[in-house]
Amino acid sequence: MSGIAARLLAGDRAALARAISKFENRDPEAPGILKEIFSNTGRAKVWGITGPPGAGKSTLVDQLIRLLRARSQKVAVIAVDPSSPFTGGAILGDRIRMQDHASDPLVFIRSLGTRGQQGGLSQATLEAVLALDAAGFDHILVETAGVGQTELEILELAHQVVVVLVPEGGDSIQMMKAGLLEIADLFVVNKADRPDAALFCRNLESVLDLLPQEGARPPVLLAQAVRGVGMTEVLDALESQQQESLRVREKTQRTLRKAVFQVLSDRLMRSVQAAFETPSGQELLEQMTQRTIDPVAVADLFSGHSSS
Amino acid sequence: MSGIAARLLAGDRAALARAISKFENRDPEAPGILKEIFSNTGRAKVWGITGPPGAGKSTLVDQLIRLLRARSQKVAVIAVDPSSPFTGGAILGDRIRMQDHASDPLVFIRSLGTRGQQGGLSQATLEAVLALDAAGFDHILVETAGVGQTELEILELAHQVVVVLVPEGGDSIQMMKAGLLEIADLFVVNKADRPDAALFCRNLESVLDLLPQEGARPPVLLAQAVRGVGMTEVLDALESQQQESLRVREKTQRTLRKAVFQVLSDRLMRSVQAAFETPSGQELLEQMTQRTIDPVAVADLFSGHSSS
Repeated sequence: MSGIAARLLAGDRAALARAISKFENRDPEAPGILKEIFSNTGRAKVWGITGPPGAGKSTLVDQLIRLLRARSQKVAVIAVDPSSPFTGGAILGDRIRMQDHASDPLVFIRSLGTRGQQGGLSQATLEAVLALDAAGFDHILVETAGVGQTELEILELAHQVVVVLVPEGGDSIQMMKAGLLEIADLFVVNKADRPDAALFCRNLESVLDLLPQEGARPPVLLAQAVRGVGMTEVLDALESQQQESLRVREKTQRTLRKAVFQVLSDRLMRSVQAAFETPSGQELLEQMTQRTIDPVAVADLFSGHSSS
Repeated sequence: MSGIAARLLAGDRAALARAISKFENRDPEAPGILKEIFSNTGRAKVWGITGPPGAGKSTLVDQLIRLLRARSQKVAVIAVDPSSPFTGGAILGDRIRMQDHASDPLVFIRSLGTRGQQGGLSQATLEAVLALDAAGFDHILVETAGVGQTELEILELAHQVVVVLVPEGGDSIQMMKAGLLEIADLFVVNKADRPDAALFCRNLESVLDLLPQEGARPPVLLAQAVRGVGMTEVLDALESQQQESLRVREKTQRTLRKAVFQVLSDRLMRSVQAAFETPSGQELLEQMTQRTIDPVAVADLFSGHSSS
């Protein structure tokens, strides 16, 4: 067993951080580490937290950390920073608050940012979750801003997803548009002290009731995360849903299938890159540029595949 | 040659739309169409347009369409809708304005939305660009909201990228964070009638001057897209940059390498899905769920690869 994997399994935080960096950078050592830690995974509860900017996601995460620590749970947070050129600062800014927990050895907080490679961020998140699971964290909270395809892909690896909203007009309809409903297991209407909070909740519930549901309609809870109000109810709702293990099992299996695909996709990426660096690869690239051979034919040559 | 490819090359808009849908849906016929149209690609100029919500991207695109049509160019627009659950409506809303051009047979406008499959949206955009190129469009404008990894990946396939901004404090620094500078070839400061527009421009130029540049520093132009002010200058700047063909050539080759990878990645995805549907694949999935085999070992079994 490699040094990193052994130390990670023994609870060494530096090794854990190093392993996650290797996953993030698609390091060639990453599959070896994954292989070595995998039999120690499968114990953690993985919760996704998403919502629009300003809804109070990080405050809610902060409160969940406190409550879980009070229940003697080891908690890890992965904050996925989509590194938007226009809004990228928001998530990392909120990290500062969570650093209250930085000195707690049973809390681990890590941001993951955009990598150039296609799908790189969701791959890295999946493997980081496995690393934290193997390192013995009981709860892993994955926080995203939920603003794009990458973030929705990332939320798919959570066992349960919490969508945090604030009582403001229009959002509830927008939200239904893009597959978020399918992944939401719980809605938290935060900033419940606002005058229109109760009305917003009822409207949201009405919309949810109209839509086809697989299983029970996701509950809608009111909260004021900044004052800790309603947070025990959120935690208890998540813990009780956890009992419905069929959906969790399906999600786990989808995640595992994806992990297998990722290993193969990384290998494919490397082999295609290597093929283009050979003299014949360079020649094929030149021919494609001249339009005398097409990408499908080049793919066939690279893979030894014969097609029409 | 398939019917769709032949009709697309003959200028049939319905066939073009059908081909793009097949690329968008990762249809099994897609590689065959790509193969058949590829030798007719490589002529179009591909420009990416990005910027924060409200900067006036769609108005700018609308003006570019008018100017290009006045120069007898055939113009296509691909508006990539990240389908954000929170902001997803904005781009499609702006499409309504562009429908002024809907009756012009030499203008083609198409929105592409999020697909579930990893990387699906950037794959579809790449292939849609090739289809429009083969169909004889001289200019292809790819508009994104630039808010995430997927959108930045998509902009990489443009020969040149225009970043549209409005004079507002803070944004210029945010913008530098996430690789947008590396892909920006031209900045347009829109809504130039605002009082702080000139100052904003100077600040932006100062920041750009401080940063390391490969080649010339991207120009910063003032515009009022809604009144058509400064738009000829934007178009002329893009056309003159086009002369610097080395960077365009590099981008083209990167896109072609990516097209090859996509063909192979689609095949890999299908073969992994098929493998998991076999009885032995189901058994391996169950063993992974029980943690008695790891994803790397399953990948090895699927690919006939032997590793430690």
